[in-house]
Amino acid sequence: MPDAEAPPQIEALIDLMARLPGLGPRSARRAVLTLLKKRGSLMAPLATAMAQVATTARDCRTCGNISTADLCPICTDDRRATGEICVVEDVADLWALERAGVFRGRYHILGGTLSALDAVGPDELRIPALLARIRSEGTREVILALNATVDGQTTAHYIADALTPTGVTITSLAQGVPIGGELDYLDDGTLSAALRARKSF
Amino acid sequence: MPDAEAPPQIEALIDLMARLPGLGPRSARRAVLTLLKKRGSLMAPLATAMAQVATTARDCRTCGNISTADLCPICTDDRRATGEICVVEDVADLWALERAGVFRGRYHILGGTLSALDAVGPDELRIPALLARIRSEGTREVILALNATVDGQTTAHYIADALTPTGVTITSLAQGVPIGGELDYLDDGTLSAALRARKSF
Ligand SMILES: [Zn+2]
Ligand SMILES: [Zn+2]
Repeated sequence: MPDAEAPPQIEALIDLMARLPGLGPRSARRAVLTLLKKRGSLMAPLATAMAQVATTARDCRTCGNISTADLCPICTDDRRATGEICVVEDVADLWALERAGVFRGRYHILGGTLSALDAVGPDELRIPALLARIRSEGTREVILALNATVDGQTTAHYIADALTPTGVTITSLAQGVPIGGELDYLDDGTLSAALRARKSF
Repeated sequence: MPDAEAPPQIEALIDLMARLPGLGPRSARRAVLTLLKKRGSLMAPLATAMAQVATTARDCRTCGNISTADLCPICTDDRRATGEICVVEDVADLWALERAGVFRGRYHILGGTLSALDAVGPDELRIPALLARIRSEGTREVILALNATVDGQTTAHYIADALTPTGVTITSLAQGVPIGGELDYLDDGTLSAALRARKSF
């Protein structure tokens, strides 16, 4: 290896940036160069914003959504129906549904899908917490809004089986979700149509 | 517009991230989601590293290289020849040449190229500082290692004209730099060959 190109602190920053999705080592280097050129107008505010979020962000105690308080804004919004819970894999999926603006109930973030390969079982996925919520909140309907992937649908079937004893109505997104598609990549119209046309699971 | 998807602090962080090259609004959102999932292992260290660099990084007083001290490590390295100055547009180009590891003199960072369109004149480019260095350091050779673009070559000709009265030898990278190519994207071997085969300008 040649000599270090940049000072060690800057090389360390490049290495950390390269761990972000979408940025490889070369694009991380270019991003850091842009930050260095805009030290006052971009780098300092970004560092401050990141530090603030890193210290204040936490998982909502009820639904698992990212929040800066113990409960997220959705869980504390009285205008949102408590009888409907939309189950999603990830916060990105909640954001996608909120962008579509069609669902006015509450969410439950699983935090992933069941996966034998990665040793992800029901306890890793906040499924026990979902069962507890349904019992304590008197939930009428659970909408399984999981990705149309093999793992997503395996997880949906597992949850449907686990929820059957509670008597809750179980539905799933139906029309408009393409085979193999991921919710976070769908346009708002497709998501809205899929939610409105949801069918019994 | 629909309701905000994420808490305001997180939306603000996404907006700042989206200003980095290579990250659009969507990929910035995904990057922030990764940061949120890795709050302790990635987000907090990244915020700290960024804040540290933002407060300590500055331009080397002599050459314009990024540094954490008044003078950069290259300008204070006694093993590097003082008689040769390699003129580059940008810190990224210096990094590329250091990766190649073939040049053992000093650098001078212009900070861009002359551009009538962007109203960039010689005073914006640290060209007066280059002239002053050549006079005070007794420079023997100036290597013009500018990009093989129209602006880069226009700037090279301007500098060559400005340097003629000093009597310094002016060379430029020759073989290996493809037409329209940018230094930062070349492989080390090509850069090394171009530097070794430099010719009189
Ligand atoms: Zn919540
Ligand atoms: Zn320097």
